[in-house]
Amino acid sequence: MGIVLGTNRYGKAETRVFRIVRDTDRHVIRDLNVSTSLTGDFAAAHVRGDQAHVLPTDTQKNTVFAFAKLVGVGEIEDFGLALARHFVDDVGPVTGADVRIEEHAWERIADNDHGFSRRGPDVRTARVTVSPEGTTVVGGIRDLVVLKSTGSEFADFLVDDYTTLAPTHDRVLATSLTVQWTYTAGEDHDWGATYDAARRTLLDRFTGVHSLALQQSLWEMGRAVLEAVPEIASIELVAPNIHHIAVDLAPFGLANDGEVFHVTDRPYGLIEVTVERKA
Amino acid sequence: MGIVLGTNRYGKAETRVFRIVRDTDRHVIRDLNVSTSLTGDFAAAHVRGDQAHVLPTDTQKNTVFAFAKLVGVGEIEDFGLALARHFVDDVGPVTGADVRIEEHAWERIADNDHGFSRRGPDVRTARVTVSPEGTTVVGGIRDLVVLKSTGSEFADFLVDDYTTLAPTHDRVLATSLTVQWTYTAGEDHDWGATYDAARRTLLDRFTGVHSLALQQSLWEMGRAVLEAVPEIASIELVAPNIHHIAVDLAPFGLANDGEVFHVTDRPYGLIEVTVERKA
Amino acid sequence: MGIVLGTNRYGKAETRVFRIVRDTDRHVIRDLNVSTSLTGDFAAAHVRGDQAHVLPTDTQKNTVFAFAKLVGVGEIEDFGLALARHFVDDVGPVTGADVRIEEHAWERIADNDHGFSRRGPDVRTARVTVSPEGTTVVGGIRDLVVLKSTGSEFADFLVDDYTTLAPTHDRVLATSLTVQWTYTAGEDHDWGATYDAARRTLLDRFTGVHSLALQQSLWEMGRAVLEAVPEIASIELVAPNIHHIAVDLAPFGLANDGEVFHVTDRPYGLIEVTVERKA
Amino acid sequence: MGIVLGTNRYGKAETRVFRIVRDTDRHVIRDLNVSTSLTGDFAAAHVRGDQAHVLPTDTQKNTVFAFAKLVGVGEIEDFGLALARHFVDDVGPVTGADVRIEEHAWERIADNDHGFSRRGPDVRTARVTVSPEGTTVVGGIRDLVVLKSTGSEFADFLVDDYTTLAPTHDRVLATSLTVQWTYTAGEDHDWGATYDAARRTLLDRFTGVHSLALQQSLWEMGRAVLEAVPEIASIELVAPNIHHIAVDLAPFGLANDGEVFHVTDRPYGLIEVTVERKA
Repeated sequence: MGIVLGTNRYGKAETRVFRIVRDTDRHVIRDLNVSTSLTGDFAAAHVRGDQAHVLPTDTQKNTVFAFAKLVGVGEIEDFGLALARHFVDDVGPVTGADVRIEEHAWERIADNDHGFSRRGPDVRTARVTVSPEGTTVVGGIRDLVVLKSTGSEFADFLVDDYTTLAPTHDRVLATSLTVQWTYTAGEDHDWGATYDAARRTLLDRFTGVHSLALQQSLWEMGRAVLEAVPEIASIELVAPNIHHIAVDLAPFGLANDGEVFHVTDRPYGLIEVTVERKA
Repeated sequence: MGIVLGTNRYGKAETRVFRIVRDTDRHVIRDLNVSTSLTGDFAAAHVRGDQAHVLPTDTQKNTVFAFAKLVGVGEIEDFGLALARHFVDDVGPVTGADVRIEEHAWERIADNDHGFSRRGPDVRTARVTVSPEGTTVVGGIRDLVVLKSTGSEFADFLVDDYTTLAPTHDRVLATSLTVQWTYTAGEDHDWGATYDAARRTLLDRFTGVHSLALQQSLWEMGRAVLEAVPEIASIELVAPNIHHIAVDLAPFGLANDGEVFHVTDRPYGLIEVTVERKA
Repeated sequence: MGIVLGTNRYGKAETRVFRIVRDTDRHVIRDLNVSTSLTGDFAAAHVRGDQAHVLPTDTQKNTVFAFAKLVGVGEIEDFGLALARHFVDDVGPVTGADVRIEEHAWERIADNDHGFSRRGPDVRTARVTVSPEGTTVVGGIRDLVVLKSTGSEFADFLVDDYTTLAPTHDRVLATSLTVQWTYTAGEDHDWGATYDAARRTLLDRFTGVHSLALQQSLWEMGRAVLEAVPEIASIELVAPNIHHIAVDLAPFGLANDGEVFHVTDRPYGLIEVTVERKA
Repeated sequence: MGIVLGTNRYGKAETRVFRIVRDTDRHVIRDLNVSTSLTGDFAAAHVRGDQAHVLPTDTQKNTVFAFAKLVGVGEIEDFGLALARHFVDDVGPVTGADVRIEEHAWERIADNDHGFSRRGPDVRTARVTVSPEGTTVVGGIRDLVVLKSTGSEFADFLVDDYTTLAPTHDRVLATSLTVQWTYTAGEDHDWGATYDAARRTLLDRFTGVHSLALQQSLWEMGRAVLEAVPEIASIELVAPNIHHIAVDLAPFGLANDGEVFHVTDRPYGLIEVTVERKA
């Protein structure tokens, strides 16, 4: 039984490219973190150290910068598509490309033409995968931190020998969402509009649903996005539960009617859900 | 020549307290990170291991939670004053208290009564120090990330044998500000209004000043805050320079007229400036 | 076309459990970070908010602590197996469990019986997956930071229009390895001995191989582990290239014969390789 | 009452310089993070934007790299002294320099001549300050994580209305030390030998002292360093208490005789102590 090379890929991670569009005095800015990874016939590089098929990761970085000028930076999904196609179409040994982009948000300071302040913590994300099997575009958002100060329960759960948690019909529900949605086939979707609709729908359902569990909130949020945005085929939500523990103030002669909480770091519940269209 | 105990203090750092004000269905929330540190006569705890004078840090944490209920959480400066005074006035061996508070910002989701999303990255800060010498209140902000895509120069600087930097008359200026301002004596200042005025003035001057150096921008920002807010006695600005390096696209046959930049992490310029009123 | 629940799972992440074995005065300590995630029939929790099938994540945390006492903490693979089996065997609706464990290393201070200092940065990892398809045990290590100050080349690579990198026949090669190896079927492997052999082999080959590319080093390292440890079926290596860029000292009238380097943070090359046995 | 410029300084933070000494085939490596900050007459840069007195932070970075070649990198205290003196002596407007250096530790892999693995988590530090008042050299260590699984008490402390903590006569004591010691005047101390002695003494006393409080342990550790190393004039210890909370296993019918603990992140006790020689 021999030993063989299995799946492998390589690329340049976290190229931080900043683009100013200065066609007019009212500048537009794009602040990206771009990671590229290539697949193809790289066996010789591993087994014999022969780099003839290997486009340096430094070149991948250069390409990101050059394309920021050449094709510009519009919607990050389009920028990702341009980069991924280039690597697959123009670089011989490359058969697949995976491009991930994060876009940091800025807002104008008092509507200034060239002064901005960073807006967060949430970050828009995109991932474009081109391979012999086809092209996939995934939009998303990470670090979207949301909280409900009421309208959340957790009760009637399964109890075993290790269960000490008390049921509650009014708790704080908080999470830092990472959401990724896969678009239906096609590369002409209105990425910006669908992103806005998905983000708005996630927030709307998070607040609107009376939550019996974080699972239920996530399901309803995902379902609503699919209903609102036909261009989205499926959506994955990853939600760490940021626990807000009611503090026992009785030792100090004080009541705590859902007013004072301790926010904990670890451990944390972690819920992962995919919602999709039935085939 | 003997060996003696020098300055010493102890406390509880980073108590994460979350407070809901639910007087009406329209909840108000406060999300704080509170650190307390006490000074006093703690020599025996060190030298003999005698804890008779030591209020446990666990008690300090409890006090933060109890006070979140008892005195409520209004402006963080007031909360800090209440905590610091309590430790100094009510705990025998304690002669001084240093209370630092960070407040994380949240905004209502679509004006919902109890649904919120985290707003950042900037964080409001306060520090209250009570000691035999008196009481000091410091307001502030950290992680206020700002950027100008033009209107910034750096030229005519000192050149020595190790200087290779080219002067520039149009660069990207970006920084992540940590600012702390010391209030004049008195504990009845309108903390919220002065915070808002200071923040607004910092942003306004950052964009408004044609910058010949980050130092100049900081000076003008600090000066403007002192002019706008008479309750502020002095202001300290700490500003790491987030370097945006223009990428050389010439090897690819492309011009780069201030359009494509590489954002670097380390090293970074670090400018620290205090602006104060003349005695 | 309807909307349906897709894959989903939930659990408790990052339970920090510390275990002292005090059978004798010479204490043994185990410092773990345990994450559990369960799969099963949880559709009702999502779609109707019905928690009857949901064992709280708080209970999963309790179980980790109870098992640290009940079954003890020997090799982390065994601890993971005990936890995963318990969830699948003893909790009705659960059909699968994924348990990930990190073990932080400590070393005795001067061979003291109960005094320790933390040793790092590398962390031992294990992942146990129990599902209807069977049981998988993965051992590993993360943050194993290694560097060669010579014996590394990168040349004769593919050149395209965006390539500016110069080939080099003597560079610094540095990376922070994350390695995971999958054991062959069976749960009686000597986890500790195989871990030690894998770690030792990785380090030995990293230094021993004259590297023509990081890819080649990784292949040789993975291959050697498979040769040395028959209990390992496949191994995955993820290696960010920590770039050490030779500084141009010519402007200062100085030569730099591979002596002075700038270590950069981002971007970084990222190489991912799997080595496996031929079926 | 006018508004004036107060204290100010500027520099380059976190220049990551890596130095290989390759006089023989057995390479020696130094992995540093260097921050420089200058004081002097920089009023015009702030008030008028006039940079004539400002040596760019980019130049400070260049100087660090050049000096890594020119003067080499021996003990970091000597490297810091060379840099600080250069800025003050050779750059006209500069009257003071503050140089901070962190040195990351590496160890040889199997005694290899040029293969190394990173050793941590603790990091050696140095700070050199040159000003018109004189020169100060501070050595130190950060992130020295230590733990005692027994031999630590906390009892007989001050109790007030907010105290709920139970006294204990056997607890886990853990901390991540940041220690800085100031050398007596003079620049010819044996930095390496004193560093080794200080580190060894800190560890020895941490384990050797039966602790009645973290304060007591720190005092004894600091005192022992001053006794062991006459070249050290004073020492400051900053110690976050990494709380290990005994888990209540009674609900599961299990005893917990100091065996199972939960390690918490926040909040944490924070003890700060200086020990010095009596004048």
